[in-house]
Amino acid sequence: MNKIHIIGLGLLGGSFGLAARRKFPELTITGFDISEKNLKDAEVLGIITEAKENPDSDTDIILLATPADSLGDILEKTLNEIGENTLVIDLGSTKSNLCARAGNHSKRKQYLAGHPIAGTEYSGPKAAFAELLDGKVMILCEMDKTDLHLKEKAYQLFEALNMKLRFMDPEEHDRHLAFVSHLSHVSSFMLGKTVLQKMEDDRNIFDMAGSGFASTVRLAKSSPSMWAPILTENKENILQALDGYISNLSSIRDLIAKSDGEKIHQELADINKIRDILDLGRG
Amino acid sequence: MNKIHIIGLGLLGGSFGLAARRKFPELTITGFDISEKNLKDAEVLGIITEAKENPDSDTDIILLATPADSLGDILEKTLNEIGENTLVIDLGSTKSNLCARAGNHSKRKQYLAGHPIAGTEYSGPKAAFAELLDGKVMILCEMDKTDLHLKEKAYQLFEALNMKLRFMDPEEHDRHLAFVSHLSHVSSFMLGKTVLQKMEDDRNIFDMAGSGFASTVRLAKSSPSMWAPILTENKENILQALDGYISNLSSIRDLIAKSDGEKIHQELADINKIRDILDLGRG
Repeated sequence: MNKIHIIGLGLLGGSFGLAARRKFPELTITGFDISEKNLKDAEVLGIITEAKENPDSDTDIILLATPADSLGDILEKTLNEIGENTLVIDLGSTKSNLCARAGNHSKRKQYLAGHPIAGTEYSGPKAAFAELLDGKVMILCEMDKTDLHLKEKAYQLFEALNMKLRFMDPEEHDRHLAFVSHLSHVSSFMLGKTVLQKMEDDRNIFDMAGSGFASTVRLAKSSPSMWAPILTENKENILQALDGYISNLSSIRDLIAKSDGEKIHQELADINKIRDILDLGRG
Repeated sequence: MNKIHIIGLGLLGGSFGLAARRKFPELTITGFDISEKNLKDAEVLGIITEAKENPDSDTDIILLATPADSLGDILEKTLNEIGENTLVIDLGSTKSNLCARAGNHSKRKQYLAGHPIAGTEYSGPKAAFAELLDGKVMILCEMDKTDLHLKEKAYQLFEALNMKLRFMDPEEHDRHLAFVSHLSHVSSFMLGKTVLQKMEDDRNIFDMAGSGFASTVRLAKSSPSMWAPILTENKENILQALDGYISNLSSIRDLIAKSDGEKIHQELADINKIRDILDLGRG
Protein backbone atom coordinates (compact mmCIF):
# COMPACT_ATOMS: atom_id res chain seq x y z
CA MET A 1 0.00 0.00 0.00
CA ASN A 2 1.48 3.30 -1.11
CA LYS A 3 -1.19 5.91 -1.33
CA ILE A 4 -4.42 6.77 0.48
CA HIS A 5 -6.78 9.64 -0.21
CA ILE A 6 -9.22 10.87 2.44
CA ILE A 7 -12.28 12.97 1.62
CA GLY A 8 -13.63 14.64 4.75
CA LEU A 9 -10.91 15.44 7.28
CA GLY A 10 -12.93 15.63 10.48
CA LEU A 11 -12.70 13.49 13.61
CA LEU A 12 -13.03 10.19 11.77
CA GLY A 13 -11.17 10.91 8.51
CA GLY A 14 -8.48 12.70 10.49
CA SER A 15 -8.04 9.83 12.93
CA PHE A 16 -7.72 7.34 10.05
CA GLY A 17 -5.02 9.54 8.53
CA LEU A 18 -3.05 9.80 11.78
CA ALA A 19 -3.36 6.08 12.53
CA ALA A 20 -2.45 5.00 8.98
CA ARG A 21 0.62 7.19 8.92
CA ARG A 22 1.78 5.83 12.27
CA LYS A 23 1.54 2.25 10.95
CA PHE A 24 2.87 2.97 7.44
CA PRO A 25 5.36 5.84 7.81
CA GLU A 26 6.16 5.79 4.06
CA LEU A 27 2.51 6.17 3.04
CA THR A 28 1.46 9.13 0.92
CA ILE A 29 -1.81 10.48 2.31
CA THR A 30 -3.59 13.01 0.17
CA GLY A 31 -6.88 14.51 1.21
CA PHE A 32 -9.62 17.06 0.74
CA ASP A 33 -12.21 18.84 2.84
CA ILE A 34 -14.86 21.25 1.64
CA SER A 35 -13.92 23.49 4.57
CA GLU A 36 -10.72 25.40 3.79
CA LYS A 37 -10.00 25.67 7.50
CA ASN A 38 -10.29 21.92 8.03
CA LEU A 39 -8.06 21.29 5.03
CA LYS A 40 -5.42 23.69 6.31
CA ASP A 41 -5.64 22.25 9.84
CA ALA A 42 -5.27 18.71 8.50
CA GLU A 43 -2.06 19.68 6.72
CA VAL A 44 -0.64 21.44 9.76
CA LEU A 45 -1.55 18.53 12.06
CA GLY A 46 0.14 16.04 9.74
CA ILE A 47 -3.10 14.17 8.98
CA ILE A 48 -2.37 14.41 5.25
CA THR A 49 0.88 14.79 3.37
CA GLU A 50 -0.70 16.80 0.57
CA ALA A 51 -4.01 18.62 0.06
CA LYS A 52 -5.67 17.95 -3.28
CA GLU A 53 -9.26 17.75 -4.43
CA ASN A 54 -8.84 14.82 -6.83
CA PRO A 55 -6.98 11.66 -5.85
CA ASP A 56 -4.03 10.51 -7.98
CA SER A 57 -4.84 7.68 -10.35
CA ASP A 58 -2.48 5.31 -8.51
CA THR A 59 -4.26 5.74 -5.17
CA ASP A 60 -4.83 2.42 -3.37
CA ILE A 61 -7.69 3.40 -1.11
CA ILE A 62 -10.02 6.39 -1.03
CA LEU A 63 -11.79 6.87 2.31
CA LEU A 64 -15.03 8.83 2.32
CA ALA A 65 -15.60 10.40 5.74
CA THR A 66 -18.15 13.15 5.09
CA PRO A 67 -21.66 13.58 6.60
CA ALA A 68 -24.26 10.96 5.64
CA ASP A 69 -26.25 13.23 3.31
CA SER A 70 -23.25 13.99 1.09
CA LEU A 71 -21.90 10.44 0.75
CA GLY A 72 -24.18 9.30 -2.09
CA ASP A 73 -23.11 12.01 -4.52
CA ILE A 74 -19.45 11.86 -3.53
CA LEU A 75 -19.39 8.08 -3.87
CA GLU A 76 -20.90 8.23 -7.34
CA LYS A 77 -18.55 10.96 -8.54
CA THR A 78 -15.54 9.19 -7.06
CA LEU A 79 -16.40 5.82 -8.61
CA ASN A 80 -16.89 7.54 -11.98
CA GLU A 81 -13.38 8.96 -11.93
CA ILE A 82 -11.11 6.30 -10.39
CA GLY A 83 -8.75 3.91 -12.10
CA GLU A 84 -9.27 0.17 -11.82
CA ASN A 85 -6.85 -0.52 -8.95
CA THR A 86 -8.45 1.88 -6.51
CA LEU A 87 -10.86 0.85 -3.75
CA VAL A 88 -13.37 3.35 -2.35
CA ILE A 89 -14.50 2.81 1.26
CA ASP A 90 -17.16 4.94 2.90
CA LEU A 91 -17.26 5.27 6.69
CA GLY A 92 -20.84 6.50 7.04
CA SER A 93 -23.15 5.73 9.97
CA THR A 94 -26.02 4.54 7.76
CA LYS A 95 -25.65 1.90 5.07
CA SER A 96 -28.93 0.88 3.36
CA ASN A 97 -29.51 3.87 1.08
CA LEU A 98 -25.87 4.10 0.14
CA CYS A 99 -25.52 0.40 -0.72
CA ALA A 100 -28.74 0.52 -2.74
CA ARG A 101 -27.45 3.47 -4.72
CA ALA A 102 -23.99 1.94 -5.24
CA GLY A 103 -25.62 -1.30 -6.41
CA ASN A 104 -26.48 0.29 -9.72
CA HIS A 105 -22.98 1.56 -10.45
CA SER A 106 -20.86 -0.17 -13.07
CA LYS A 107 -17.86 -0.01 -10.70
CA ARG A 108 -19.75 -1.47 -7.72
CA LYS A 109 -16.96 -4.01 -7.13
CA GLN A 110 -14.54 -1.15 -6.39
CA TYR A 111 -16.65 -0.03 -3.43
CA LEU A 112 -16.66 -1.30 0.15
CA ALA A 113 -19.32 -0.18 2.65
CA GLY A 114 -17.84 0.31 6.12
CA HIS A 115 -18.78 1.80 9.45
CA PRO A 116 -16.26 2.08 12.28
CA ILE A 117 -17.95 2.05 15.71
CA ALA A 118 -15.77 4.80 17.06
CA GLY A 119 -16.25 8.45 17.78
CA THR A 120 -16.31 11.12 20.43
CA GLU A 121 -18.63 14.06 20.98
CA TYR A 122 -16.06 16.34 19.35
CA SER A 123 -15.58 17.05 15.67
CA GLY A 124 -13.10 18.48 13.16
CA PRO A 125 -9.46 17.59 12.42
CA LYS A 126 -8.28 19.01 15.74
CA ALA A 127 -10.38 16.41 17.54
CA ALA A 128 -8.73 13.57 15.61
CA PHE A 129 -6.26 11.22 17.32
CA ALA A 130 -4.48 8.09 16.14
CA GLU A 131 -5.82 5.86 18.93
CA LEU A 132 -9.52 6.48 18.20
CA LEU A 133 -9.82 3.36 16.04
CA ASP A 134 -7.57 1.06 18.03
CA GLY A 135 -9.42 -2.11 19.05
CA LYS A 136 -12.74 -0.80 17.74
CA VAL A 137 -15.28 -2.65 15.61
CA MET A 138 -15.42 -2.03 11.85
CA ILE A 139 -18.74 -3.16 10.38
CA LEU A 140 -18.56 -4.16 6.72
CA CYS A 141 -21.63 -4.69 4.53
CA GLU A 142 -22.20 -6.59 1.26
CA MET A 143 -18.65 -7.95 1.23
CA ASP A 144 -19.49 -10.31 -1.63
CA LYS A 145 -20.04 -7.37 -3.95
CA THR A 146 -16.50 -6.07 -3.58
CA ASP A 147 -13.60 -7.28 -5.73
CA LEU A 148 -11.52 -9.93 -3.94
CA HIS A 149 -8.19 -8.38 -4.78
CA LEU A 150 -9.24 -4.88 -3.70
CA LYS A 151 -10.73 -6.22 -0.47
CA GLU A 152 -7.25 -7.41 0.50
CA LYS A 153 -6.07 -3.80 0.62
CA ALA A 154 -8.90 -2.93 3.01
CA TYR A 155 -8.08 -5.89 5.28
CA GLN A 156 -4.45 -4.87 5.32
CA LEU A 157 -5.36 -1.35 6.45
CA PHE A 158 -7.93 -2.37 9.09
CA GLU A 159 -5.65 -5.06 10.48
CA ALA A 160 -2.77 -2.62 10.80
CA LEU A 161 -5.13 -0.31 12.69
CA ASN A 162 -6.07 -3.18 15.05
CA MET A 163 -9.75 -3.05 14.17
CA LYS A 164 -12.18 -5.93 14.75
CA LEU A 165 -14.16 -6.79 11.62
CA ARG A 166 -17.88 -7.61 11.79
CA PHE A 167 -20.12 -8.42 8.84
CA MET A 168 -23.82 -7.60 8.46
CA ASP A 169 -26.19 -6.73 5.69
CA PRO A 170 -26.98 -3.00 5.32
CA GLU A 171 -30.57 -3.31 6.56
CA GLU A 172 -29.48 -5.19 9.68
CA HIS A 173 -26.78 -2.59 10.28
CA ASP A 174 -29.21 0.33 10.11
CA ARG A 175 -31.81 -1.40 12.29
CA HIS A 176 -29.17 -2.25 14.82
CA LEU A 177 -27.45 1.13 14.93
CA ALA A 178 -30.78 2.94 15.33
CA PHE A 179 -31.10 1.24 18.72
CA VAL A 180 -27.52 1.21 20.01
CA SER A 181 -26.25 4.52 18.68
CA HIS A 182 -28.75 6.80 16.97
CA LEU A 183 -31.37 6.55 19.74
CA SER A 184 -28.69 7.32 22.36
CA HIS A 185 -27.84 10.51 20.52
CA VAL A 186 -31.46 11.64 20.22
CA SER A 187 -32.00 10.80 23.90
CA SER A 188 -28.95 12.78 24.91
CA PHE A 189 -29.78 15.82 22.77
CA MET A 190 -33.34 15.98 24.15
CA LEU A 191 -32.07 15.61 27.70
CA GLY A 192 -29.85 18.61 27.04
CA LYS A 193 -32.79 20.54 25.62
CA THR A 194 -34.98 19.75 28.63
CA VAL A 195 -32.38 21.04 31.07
CA LEU A 196 -31.68 24.15 28.95
CA GLN A 197 -35.41 24.95 28.95
CA LYS A 198 -35.57 24.54 32.72
CA MET A 199 -32.62 26.86 33.13
CA GLU A 200 -34.45 29.64 31.36
CA ASP A 201 -36.40 30.26 34.55
CA ASP A 202 -33.89 28.81 36.99
CA ARG A 203 -30.36 30.05 36.36
CA ASN A 204 -28.88 28.56 39.49
CA ILE A 205 -26.76 25.77 38.09
CA PHE A 206 -23.95 24.20 40.09
CA ASP A 207 -21.00 22.03 39.30
CA MET A 208 -22.66 18.85 38.07
CA ALA A 209 -19.66 16.53 38.02
CA GLY A 210 -20.96 13.28 39.45
CA SER A 211 -24.63 14.09 38.98
CA GLY A 212 -25.17 11.54 36.22
CA PHE A 213 -26.22 14.36 33.93
CA ALA A 214 -22.76 14.90 32.48
CA SER A 215 -22.43 11.34 31.19
CA THR A 216 -25.95 11.02 29.77
CA VAL A 217 -25.80 14.41 28.06
CA ARG A 218 -22.26 14.14 26.70
CA LEU A 219 -23.46 13.16 23.23
CA ALA A 220 -25.50 16.39 23.02
CA LYS A 221 -22.21 18.11 22.26
CA SER A 222 -22.03 16.18 18.98
CA SER A 223 -21.88 17.83 15.57
CA PRO A 224 -25.29 18.78 14.08
CA SER A 225 -23.79 18.54 10.57
CA MET A 226 -23.03 14.89 11.17
CA TRP A 227 -26.13 13.97 13.15
CA ALA A 228 -29.03 15.75 11.43
CA PRO A 229 -28.38 13.76 8.19
CA ILE A 230 -28.11 10.44 10.07
CA LEU A 231 -31.53 11.00 11.67
CA THR A 232 -33.23 11.52 8.32
CA GLU A 233 -31.18 8.87 6.44
CA ASN A 234 -32.14 6.19 8.94
CA LYS A 235 -35.61 7.57 9.55
CA GLU A 236 -37.75 4.42 9.65
CA ASN A 237 -35.52 2.56 12.09
CA ILE A 238 -35.03 5.59 14.30
CA LEU A 239 -38.78 6.26 14.45
CA GLN A 240 -39.29 2.67 15.56
CA ALA A 241 -36.63 2.98 18.26
CA LEU A 242 -37.94 6.37 19.39
CA ASP A 243 -41.52 5.16 19.61
CA GLY A 244 -40.43 2.26 21.80
CA TYR A 245 -38.42 4.61 23.97
CA ILE A 246 -41.22 7.18 24.37
CA SER A 247 -43.65 4.40 25.23
CA ASN A 248 -41.29 3.06 27.92
CA LEU A 249 -40.85 6.54 29.36
CA SER A 250 -44.62 7.03 29.45
CA SER A 251 -45.12 3.76 31.24
CA ILE A 252 -42.58 4.50 34.00
CA ARG A 253 -44.10 7.99 34.21
CA ASP A 254 -47.42 6.37 35.08
CA LEU A 255 -45.83 4.13 37.72
CA ILE A 256 -44.18 7.18 39.30
CA ALA A 257 -47.49 9.11 39.21
CA LYS A 258 -49.12 6.19 41.03
CA SER A 259 -46.20 6.04 43.51
CA ASP A 260 -45.96 2.33 42.77
CA GLY A 261 -42.55 1.83 44.35
CA GLU A 262 -42.74 -1.94 44.15
CA LYS A 263 -43.35 -2.11 40.40
CA ILE A 264 -40.74 0.57 39.77
CA HIS A 265 -38.21 -1.47 41.75
CA GLN A 266 -39.05 -4.59 39.77
CA GLU A 267 -38.73 -2.70 36.50
CA LEU A 268 -35.34 -1.20 37.34
CA ALA A 269 -34.08 -4.58 38.56
CA ASP A 270 -35.09 -6.20 35.25
CA ILE A 271 -33.24 -3.50 33.31
CA ASN A 272 -30.09 -4.13 35.35
CA LYS A 273 -29.63 -7.11 32.99
CA ILE A 274 -28.12 -4.58 30.61
CA ARG A 275 -24.91 -5.01 32.62
CA ASP A 276 -24.30 -8.37 30.95
CA ILE A 277 -24.71 -6.85 27.51
CA LEU A 278 -22.44 -3.92 28.21
CA ASP A 279 -19.78 -6.32 29.41
CA LEU A 280 -20.04 -8.51 26.27
CA GLY A 281 -17.19 -6.88 24.45
CA ARG A 282 -14.81 -7.02 27.37
CA GLY A 283 -14.13 -10.75 27.29
CA MET B 1 -13.33 14.95 66.05
CA ASN B 2 -12.96 11.51 67.59
CA LYS B 3 -15.85 9.33 66.60
CA ILE B 4 -18.12 8.92 63.59
CA HIS B 5 -20.96 6.46 63.14
CA ILE B 6 -22.24 5.52 59.68
CA ILE B 7 -25.64 3.93 59.10
CA GLY B 8 -25.79 2.38 55.63
CA LEU B 9 -22.43 1.07 54.46
CA GLY B 10 -22.92 1.09 50.70
CA LEU B 11 -21.08 3.05 48.02
CA LEU B 12 -21.65 6.43 49.66
CA GLY B 13 -21.46 5.55 53.35
CA GLY B 14 -18.50 3.31 52.64
CA SER B 15 -16.64 5.99 50.69
CA PHE B 16 -17.19 8.50 53.52
CA GLY B 17 -15.73 5.97 55.94
CA LEU B 18 -12.65 5.30 53.82
CA ALA B 19 -12.04 9.00 53.11
CA ALA B 20 -12.55 10.05 56.75
CA ARG B 21 -10.15 7.44 58.03
CA ARG B 22 -7.50 8.49 55.50
CA LYS B 23 -7.72 12.09 56.71
CA PHE B 24 -8.09 11.30 60.41
CA PRO B 25 -6.14 8.09 61.05
CA GLU B 26 -7.00 8.15 64.77
CA LEU B 27 -10.75 8.37 64.17
CA THR B 28 -13.03 5.68 65.56
CA ILE B 29 -15.59 4.78 62.89
CA THR B 30 -18.47 2.64 64.02
CA GLY B 31 -21.22 1.63 61.66
CA PHE B 32 -24.24 -0.46 60.87
CA ASP B 33 -25.95 -1.91 57.84
CA ILE B 34 -29.22 -3.85 57.74
CA SER B 35 -27.48 -6.33 55.43
CA GLU B 36 -25.22 -8.65 57.38
CA LYS B 37 -23.08 -9.17 54.32
CA ASN B 38 -22.54 -5.44 53.83
CA LEU B 39 -21.71 -5.04 57.50
CA LYS B 40 -19.16 -7.85 57.36
CA ASP B 41 -17.66 -6.54 54.11
CA ALA B 42 -17.37 -3.04 55.60
CA GLU B 43 -15.37 -4.42 58.52
CA VAL B 44 -13.11 -6.48 56.28
CA LEU B 45 -12.52 -3.56 53.93
CA GLY B 46 -11.61 -1.26 56.81
CA ILE B 47 -14.52 1.09 56.20
CA ILE B 48 -15.46 0.87 59.88
CA THR B 49 -13.38 0.08 62.93
CA GLU B 50 -16.28 -1.55 64.75
CA ALA B 51 -19.72 -2.84 63.78
CA LYS B 52 -22.52 -1.80 66.15
CA GLU B 53 -26.17 -1.00 65.71
CA ASN B 54 -26.36 1.89 68.14
CA PRO B 55 -23.79 4.71 68.14
CA ASP B 56 -21.87 5.49 71.30
CA SER B 57 -23.15 8.51 73.22
CA ASP B 58 -19.91 10.42 72.61
CA THR B 59 -20.18 10.12 68.81
CA ASP B 60 -19.44 13.42 67.05
CA ILE B 61 -21.21 12.80 63.76
CA ILE B 62 -23.71 10.19 62.64
CA LEU B 63 -23.97 9.85 58.86
CA LEU B 64 -27.19 8.41 57.43
CA ALA B 65 -26.51 6.82 54.05
CA THR B 66 -29.48 4.51 53.48
CA PRO B 67 -32.05 4.56 50.64
CA ALA B 68 -34.40 7.57 50.50
CA ASP B 69 -37.50 5.72 51.71
CA SER B 70 -35.85 4.61 54.95
CA LEU B 71 -34.24 7.91 55.95
CA GLY B 72 -37.29 9.49 57.61
CA ASP B 73 -37.77 6.75 60.19
CA ILE B 74 -34.05 6.31 60.81
CA LEU B 75 -33.55 10.05 61.26
CA GLU B 76 -36.38 10.26 63.78
CA LYS B 77 -35.19 7.26 65.77
CA THR B 78 -31.60 8.50 65.75
CA LEU B 79 -32.52 12.01 66.89
CA ASN B 80 -34.62 10.50 69.68
CA GLU B 81 -31.66 8.59 71.08
CA ILE B 82 -28.58 10.80 70.71
CA GLY B 83 -26.80 12.91 73.31
CA GLU B 84 -26.59 16.67 72.94
CA ASN B 85 -23.13 16.86 71.35
CA THR B 86 -23.90 14.63 68.41
CA LEU B 87 -24.75 15.91 64.92
CA VAL B 88 -26.80 13.75 62.52
CA ILE B 89 -26.24 14.32 58.79
CA ASP B 90 -28.25 12.56 56.14
CA LEU B 91 -26.81 12.10 52.64
CA GLY B 92 -30.05 11.42 50.79
CA SER B 93 -30.80 12.42 47.19
CA THR B 94 -34.11 14.11 48.04
CA LYS B 95 -34.50 16.77 50.71
CA SER B 96 -38.00 18.33 50.92
CA ASN B 97 -39.93 15.55 52.66
CA LEU B 98 -37.09 14.81 55.05
CA CYS B 99 -36.56 18.44 56.06
CA ALA B 100 -40.31 18.88 56.56
CA ARG B 101 -40.43 15.83 58.82
CA ALA B 102 -37.31 16.86 60.77
CA GLY B 103 -38.76 20.35 61.24
CA ASN B 104 -41.17 19.03 63.87
CA HIS B 105 -38.51 17.28 65.94
CA SER B 106 -37.44 18.76 69.24
CA LYS B 107 -33.80 18.08 68.33
CA ARG B 108 -34.03 19.70 64.88
CA LYS B 109 -30.90 21.75 65.57
CA GLN B 110 -28.86 18.54 65.84
CA TYR B 111 -29.68 17.63 62.24
CA LEU B 112 -28.01 18.76 59.02
CA ALA B 113 -29.52 17.94 55.62
CA GLY B 114 -26.81 17.12 53.06
CA HIS B 115 -26.49 15.65 49.60
CA PRO B 116 -23.10 14.90 48.07
CA ILE B 117 -23.19 15.05 44.26
CA ALA B 118 -21.09 11.96 43.85
CA GLY B 119 -21.77 8.41 42.89
CA THR B 120 -21.13 5.68 40.37
CA GLU B 121 -23.43 3.10 38.82
CA TYR B 122 -22.14 0.53 41.31
CA SER B 123 -23.36 -0.11 44.83
CA GLY B 124 -22.43 -1.78 48.10
CA PRO B 125 -19.33 -1.46 50.31
CA LYS B 126 -17.08 -3.15 47.75
CA ALA B 127 -17.83 -0.34 45.29
CA ALA B 128 -16.72 2.29 47.85
CA PHE B 129 -13.43 4.18 47.39
CA ALA B 130 -11.87 7.05 49.31
CA GLU B 131 -11.54 9.37 46.28
CA LEU B 132 -15.27 9.32 45.38
CA LEU B 133 -15.95 12.53 47.31
CA ASP B 134 -12.76 14.40 46.50
CA GLY B 135 -13.51 17.76 44.89
CA LYS B 136 -17.23 17.02 44.68
CA VAL B 137 -20.11 19.30 45.59
CA MET B 138 -21.91 18.85 48.92
CA ILE B 139 -25.31 20.52 48.93
CA LEU B 140 -26.55 21.62 52.35
CA CYS B 141 -30.12 22.70 53.08
CA GLU B 142 -31.69 24.79 55.87
CA MET B 143 -28.32 25.60 57.41
CA ASP B 144 -29.90 28.17 59.72
CA LYS B 145 -31.82 25.42 61.52
CA THR B 146 -28.69 23.59 62.62
CA ASP B 147 -26.79 24.43 65.80
CA LEU B 148 -23.79 26.67 65.11
CA HIS B 149 -21.38 24.66 67.24
CA LEU B 150 -22.41 21.33 65.71
CA LYS B 151 -22.20 22.75 62.19
CA GLU B 152 -18.50 23.37 62.80
CA LYS B 153 -17.94 19.62 63.08
CA ALA B 154 -19.59 19.11 59.71
CA TYR B 155 -17.48 21.83 58.07
CA GLN B 156 -14.35 20.25 59.53
CA LEU B 157 -15.24 16.88 58.01
CA PHE B 158 -16.29 18.16 54.58
CA GLU B 159 -13.27 20.43 54.35
CA ALA B 160 -10.91 17.58 55.19
CA LEU B 161 -12.58 15.58 52.41
CA ASN B 162 -12.01 18.47 49.96
CA MET B 163 -15.71 18.91 49.22
CA LYS B 164 -17.20 22.10 47.77
CA LEU B 165 -20.14 23.36 49.82
CA ARG B 166 -23.28 24.76 48.13
CA PHE B 167 -26.39 25.99 49.90
CA MET B 168 -29.98 25.77 48.68
CA ASP B 169 -33.41 25.36 50.18
CA PRO B 170 -34.85 21.80 50.08
CA GLU B 171 -37.49 22.61 47.44
CA GLU B 172 -34.93 24.20 45.13
CA HIS B 173 -32.65 21.18 45.65
CA ASP B 174 -35.35 18.69 44.70
CA ARG B 175 -36.49 20.70 41.68
CA HIS B 176 -32.94 21.03 40.51
CA LEU B 177 -31.89 17.44 41.03
CA ALA B 178 -34.97 16.15 39.23
CA PHE B 179 -33.58 17.74 36.08
CA VAL B 180 -29.85 17.19 36.40
CA SER B 181 -29.75 13.78 38.02
CA HIS B 182 -33.05 11.95 38.46
CA LEU B 183 -34.21 12.51 34.86
CA SER B 184 -30.84 11.25 33.58
CA HIS B 185 -31.33 8.03 35.50
CA VAL B 186 -34.87 7.48 34.22
CA SER B 187 -33.70 8.27 30.69
CA SER B 188 -30.84 5.80 30.98
CA PHE B 189 -32.96 3.00 32.47
CA MET B 190 -35.59 3.35 29.73
CA LEU B 191 -32.91 3.40 27.04
CA GLY B 192 -31.64 0.12 28.45
CA LYS B 193 -35.17 -1.29 28.46
CA THR B 194 -35.76 -0.27 24.85
CA VAL B 195 -32.61 -2.03 23.67
CA LEU B 196 -33.34 -5.13 25.78
CA GLN B 197 -36.81 -5.35 24.20
CA LYS B 198 -35.31 -5.03 20.73
CA MET B 199 -32.85 -7.80 21.50
CA GLU B 200 -35.65 -10.21 22.24
CA ASP B 201 -36.15 -10.63 18.52
CA ASP B 202 -32.67 -9.65 17.39
CA ARG B 203 -29.95 -11.39 19.39
CA ASN B 204 -27.10 -10.26 17.21
CA ILE B 205 -25.35 -7.80 19.46
CA PHE B 206 -21.78 -6.71 18.86
CA ASP B 207 -19.13 -4.99 20.89
CA MET B 208 -20.65 -1.58 21.41
CA ALA B 209 -17.64 0.27 22.79
CA GLY B 210 -17.70 3.63 21.06
CA SER B 211 -21.31 3.41 19.95
CA GLY B 212 -22.56 6.10 22.32
CA PHE B 213 -24.87 3.54 23.89
CA ALA B 214 -22.46 2.52 26.62
CA SER B 215 -22.18 6.03 28.04
CA THR B 216 -25.87 6.92 27.86
CA VAL B 217 -26.96 3.62 29.38
CA ARG B 218 -24.30 3.39 32.08
CA LEU B 219 -26.68 4.66 34.78
CA ALA B 220 -29.09 1.79 34.02
CA LYS B 221 -26.72 -0.40 36.02
CA SER B 222 -27.63 1.60 39.14
CA SER B 223 -29.18 0.07 42.24
CA PRO B 224 -33.00 -0.31 42.16
CA SER B 225 -33.07 -0.16 45.98
CA MET B 226 -31.59 3.29 45.85
CA TRP B 227 -33.41 4.61 42.79
CA ALA B 228 -36.99 3.36 43.11
CA PRO B 229 -37.45 5.34 46.37
CA ILE B 230 -35.92 8.50 44.87
CA LEU B 231 -38.40 8.41 42.00
CA THR B 232 -41.40 8.28 44.30
CA GLU B 233 -39.95 10.65 46.95
CA ASN B 234 -39.36 13.38 44.36
CA LYS B 235 -42.41 12.50 42.31
CA GLU B 236 -43.82 15.94 41.43
CA ASN B 237 -40.52 17.37 40.20
CA ILE B 238 -39.60 14.21 38.30
CA LEU B 239 -43.00 14.12 36.59
CA GLN B 240 -42.46 17.70 35.48
CA ALA B 241 -38.99 16.90 34.13
CA LEU B 242 -40.22 13.70 32.44
CA ASP B 243 -43.16 15.45 30.81
CA GLY B 244 -40.83 18.07 29.37
CA TYR B 245 -38.47 15.37 28.15
CA ILE B 246 -41.20 13.25 26.54
CA SER B 247 -42.61 16.34 24.84
CA ASN B 248 -39.17 17.21 23.43
CA LEU B 249 -38.71 13.65 22.19
CA SER B 250 -42.12 13.74 20.52
CA SER B 251 -41.32 17.00 18.79
CA ILE B 252 -38.02 15.76 17.32
CA ARG B 253 -39.81 12.56 16.37
CA ASP B 254 -42.18 14.65 14.26
CA LEU B 255 -39.31 16.53 12.60
CA ILE B 256 -37.65 13.20 11.74
CA ALA B 257 -40.93 11.81 10.39
CA LYS B 258 -41.20 14.88 8.15
CA SER B 259 -37.52 14.50 7.11
CA ASP B 260 -37.05 18.15 8.02
CA GLY B 261 -33.26 18.07 8.02
CA GLU B 262 -32.92 21.83 8.26
CA LYS B 263 -35.02 22.22 11.41
CA ILE B 264 -33.34 19.18 12.98
CA HIS B 265 -29.94 20.73 12.31
CA GLN B 266 -31.04 24.03 13.87
CA GLU B 267 -32.42 22.22 16.90
CA LEU B 268 -29.26 20.18 17.50
CA ALA B 269 -27.09 23.28 17.02
CA ASP B 270 -29.13 25.15 19.67
CA ILE B 271 -28.70 22.27 22.11
CA ASN B 272 -24.92 22.32 21.60
CA LYS B 273 -25.04 25.29 24.04
CA ILE B 274 -25.07 22.63 26.73
CA ARG B 275 -21.27 22.50 26.27
CA ASP B 276 -20.92 25.78 28.16
CA ILE B 277 -22.97 24.47 31.04
CA LEU B 278 -21.08 21.20 31.28
CA ASP B 279 -17.83 23.13 31.37
CA LEU B 280 -19.06 25.44 34.17
CA GLY B 281 -17.50 23.48 36.97
CA ARG B 282 -14.13 23.15 35.31
CA GLY B 283 -12.99 26.76 35.76
